[in-house]
Amino acid sequence: MKTDVQIAQEATMKPISEVAESIGLLEDELELYGKYKAKVSLGVFDRLKDKPDGKLILVTAINPTPAGEGKTTTNIGLSMGLNKLGKKTITALREPSLGPSFGVKGGAAGGGYAQVVPMEDINLHFTGDFHAITSAHSLLAALLDNHIHQGNALNIDTRRIAWKRVVDMNDRALRNIVIGLGGRTEGVPRQDGFDITVASEIMAILCLANDLDDLKERLGNMVVAYNLEGEPVRAKDLEATGALALILKDAIKPNLVQTLENTPALIHGGPFANIAHGCNSILATKMALKLGDYAVTEAGFGADLGAEKFFDIKCRFAGLKPAAAVIVATVRALKMHGGVAKADLGTENLNALEKGLENLEKHIENVGKFGVPSVVAINKFPTDTQAELDLVFQKVKALGAEVAISDVWANGGEGGVELAKKVIEVVESKESNFKTLYDVELPIKEKIEKIAKEVYGADGVTFTKGAEKMIKTLEGLGLDKMPICMAKTQYSLSDDASLLGRPSGFNITVRELRLSAGAGFIVALTGEVMTMPGLPKVPAANKMDILPDGTIVGLF
Amino acid sequence: MKTDVQIAQEATMKPISEVAESIGLLEDELELYGKYKAKVSLGVFDRLKDKPDGKLILVTAINPTPAGEGKTTTNIGLSMGLNKLGKKTITALREPSLGPSFGVKGGAAGGGYAQVVPMEDINLHFTGDFHAITSAHSLLAALLDNHIHQGNALNIDTRRIAWKRVVDMNDRALRNIVIGLGGRTEGVPRQDGFDITVASEIMAILCLANDLDDLKERLGNMVVAYNLEGEPVRAKDLEATGALALILKDAIKPNLVQTLENTPALIHGGPFANIAHGCNSILATKMALKLGDYAVTEAGFGADLGAEKFFDIKCRFAGLKPAAAVIVATVRALKMHGGVAKADLGTENLNALEKGLENLEKHIENVGKFGVPSVVAINKFPTDTQAELDLVFQKVKALGAEVAISDVWANGGEGGVELAKKVIEVVESKESNFKTLYDVELPIKEKIEKIAKEVYGADGVTFTKGAEKMIKTLEGLGLDKMPICMAKTQYSLSDDASLLGRPSGFNITVRELRLSAGAGFIVALTGEVMTMPGLPKVPAANKMDILPDGTIVGLF
Repeated sequence: MKTDVQIAQEATMKPISEVAESIGLLEDELELYGKYKAKVSLGVFDRLKDKPDGKLILVTAINPTPAGEGKTTTNIGLSMGLNKLGKKTITALREPSLGPSFGVKGGAAGGGYAQVVPMEDINLHFTGDFHAITSAHSLLAALLDNHIHQGNALNIDTRRIAWKRVVDMNDRALRNIVIGLGGRTEGVPRQDGFDITVASEIMAILCLANDLDDLKERLGNMVVAYNLEGEPVRAKDLEATGALALILKDAIKPNLVQTLENTPALIHGGPFANIAHGCNSILATKMALKLGDYAVTEAGFGADLGAEKFFDIKCRFAGLKPAAAVIVATVRALKMHGGVAKADLGTENLNALEKGLENLEKHIENVGKFGVPSVVAINKFPTDTQAELDLVFQKVKALGAEVAISDVWANGGEGGVELAKKVIEVVESKESNFKTLYDVELPIKEKIEKIAKEVYGADGVTFTKGAEKMIKTLEGLGLDKMPICMAKTQYSLSDDASLLGRPSGFNITVRELRLSAGAGFIVALTGEVMTMPGLPKVPAANKMDILPDGTIVGLF
Repeated sequence: MKTDVQIAQEATMKPISEVAESIGLLEDELELYGKYKAKVSLGVFDRLKDKPDGKLILVTAINPTPAGEGKTTTNIGLSMGLNKLGKKTITALREPSLGPSFGVKGGAAGGGYAQVVPMEDINLHFTGDFHAITSAHSLLAALLDNHIHQGNALNIDTRRIAWKRVVDMNDRALRNIVIGLGGRTEGVPRQDGFDITVASEIMAILCLANDLDDLKERLGNMVVAYNLEGEPVRAKDLEATGALALILKDAIKPNLVQTLENTPALIHGGPFANIAHGCNSILATKMALKLGDYAVTEAGFGADLGAEKFFDIKCRFAGLKPAAAVIVATVRALKMHGGVAKADLGTENLNALEKGLENLEKHIENVGKFGVPSVVAINKFPTDTQAELDLVFQKVKALGAEVAISDVWANGGEGGVELAKKVIEVVESKESNFKTLYDVELPIKEKIEKIAKEVYGADGVTFTKGAEKMIKTLEGLGLDKMPICMAKTQYSLSDDASLLGRPSGFNITVRELRLSAGAGFIVALTGEVMTMPGLPKVPAANKMDILPDGTIVGLF
């Protein structure tokens, strides 16, 4: 069997200018990065402002298990399938983060015969967007500490700095550090730490900005610290807004690449799916809608986190109306949700499958609460039995949802045709009555409770003392009328990773709230959130190489 | 008078593919980064291996003063002037560093009518080379601390780590830090610090590598720490070599841009000029020689540091034979060397000029010691009087060197024709008998003494106890047969910045030696060397902006 990288390297890519031409982009709207990557000018929106948008399809999933569900792969395969059926389709995806590639992960650009290419570039520096974000974030950190060092005119409380540093690398030793040591010419000592770049609020902002002006407003609004009076100090107070926007002048433009079957793919931005919203940029999604009949996009983690944030944060800010949601599941993962151990997933087990299907059922119900029709995609594995597939089909249909087999990993676009047909059928026959789950004007607690009860199925929400205090602070500052960004384990509908399937009779505990005033949301943390990964005992980097003939080894 | 950025934005750039075609590059050898930047494939060397090289011209200068001397501007103007005279000329320059742009500096891409463009891109992310170097450096740091955290099989002495972290930003608060705090899952606590990216040994290596294999060998040889037995631990011991090379797979390719007059410019790499050699990459210089009749390149600081390292390190490693050196001076700067205060430089002062000319004379003598003919370029200012210019001409000619007026800032290539004629005359009439100053097989002390006495004009060299000890250590490890990279103030021929002109009767004090085993040289430090700049009270960043129509404000 061929590896992902072998398949990718055998692909016949079209020059990206041809791919761009196929969706009506003008030569002047393209900035080439080599032959197979390009940035697309935001001028496209002006030129096409009177063109009606295509249909927006979200690809989401059940709660992930170690069995894997193949969300990105299904997204790519569905896009190729839709194209085979004559629907001009563009996929909009997140950019992978460089750092984790050197740890365990390898890469993140789909798999098998459903990949985006050139995968080695997409997985390394790509077009430099994440580097630009790291630079902007680093500049703001330097400006902040320099301000304190140069006399601290803003009266910043150095014990209440809300702006950590970032690097796009898994570097555990930088999680907790002390900076500014060495004496009076060397800065002011204080506690600090590094997050990985994807956790930067600037990443979240880049993905939520509707245009350059919006980007600048959000950048300026970021709260980087509090002063000794307890008032927020923002990036604009440090006169940083213009320079930050300047550093991001190219990063704000979506990147065009292609799938193995030359389907256009706009890959842009990649915020964390816990402390941020986990979706590619609004600009890439809007551009895909302008240029295609269908735009297929994704959201991080399972539907309880990914789809909820996609709907309540991204679609709210962007004014997007999704036409349908595809919920990806595998028979194997559903059996894990039903209690089967990973080693036993190859054996038919209808009882466990039936129990595990409750997880999928809850996500179908949830998507319905947003007024969006769903299509379940069963990402096929060789070990799936007909009886198992029949059971899934029967259960899903009983809920009034649609279901189709997806075989894109093995068969590319051809394997996505059945799913694509079902998606077209749903979009053309069912109306989407998209609505967000809650009004941002509601009190913070009510918003969180609404998500916990209606989406997670919790009985209620417990707020720790610290969380209660932070809620009061935010209300006092008038910074509470924003959407909530839930940071919760992705493995369970609850906040306990071990509760698989469809747990009930549980409470969610909110331990901490964090303000992302620039991005425009309040993060509610329900547990430890890792914002700086570490490297494993044997890092993937140890096996990587580039040979004299240019062959790349060990990246995937 | 127009500002640099106004002039740059009014320039009529040619598509970079046209510029490439004009020097015989094939379409397949080009990777476009937008319309006006490209990376050039190293395959060029294979295709042109039988083509004779062009003539190599180094542009260097007197010791810099606050009056400015315009080395890069002269380099660019000379290249344009040579082209006007029908010599196919390519300039090879260093890439500017992103971080310092936000401090005081603004940008670094020439000035007036002698600039390289697109300057806003060159001064920001350009083609991502520095970001790639930062990423590679960060990965090695993470691998090192992860190795210690995961059990420290190599027995690394955490008090003897020789690998700091880097960021491309002026961030004083990161100079001295403590990392790995927070408990047993959070790494091992130790003292650390950040340098700016241009100070990374990986930057020095990228600029000294002759090809991918050479790059990998040098990367693997970097000494990152010592073990408890006192033996060096190298990047290859951490199995990092392949991944580092992979991260640099595009960064190793020279970048092609153009001057305001469409002269091809290869801008690639930019190592520190104190703890490293301060020259653009060997690959860019060699490529310029392959593609042009003339290649004009530069070296950091004055000729005592820049030219000496260019000859003794870069030319030695690359097997290059410079045909001539241009030494840039201004009447104003020479008067400063003669004792005139900056405010009084507008007034004719022949006595001070005569005294200051000693600095220039010493550099002419020095270049002669390497067997290379020199041409002095007087970078013209409106305040220069004819009597002053006459005096300079008379003194330079008395030394058997050539001299020409350069007026490229105000008049571009036309202002460089006189200098270009003189350079051609020298190259065609005088033979270069290039030789390095010392044999690397000499003991470390002898090599340093040779540089100090012959180039700086010192009486001798004092080594501190620490330096003596490090020399013994290096000799004991057999790591002493390498060129010396002197880190000394650029403002004086001596190691005392206040001694202008041509000081005599002084000793150089070597306080510390640092090993750059991958780059392949030993750094001798003669004083405090700042490897992480800070931001000023009012950073340049505060004035920067990008307007809705794309206009860039405050970058220069």
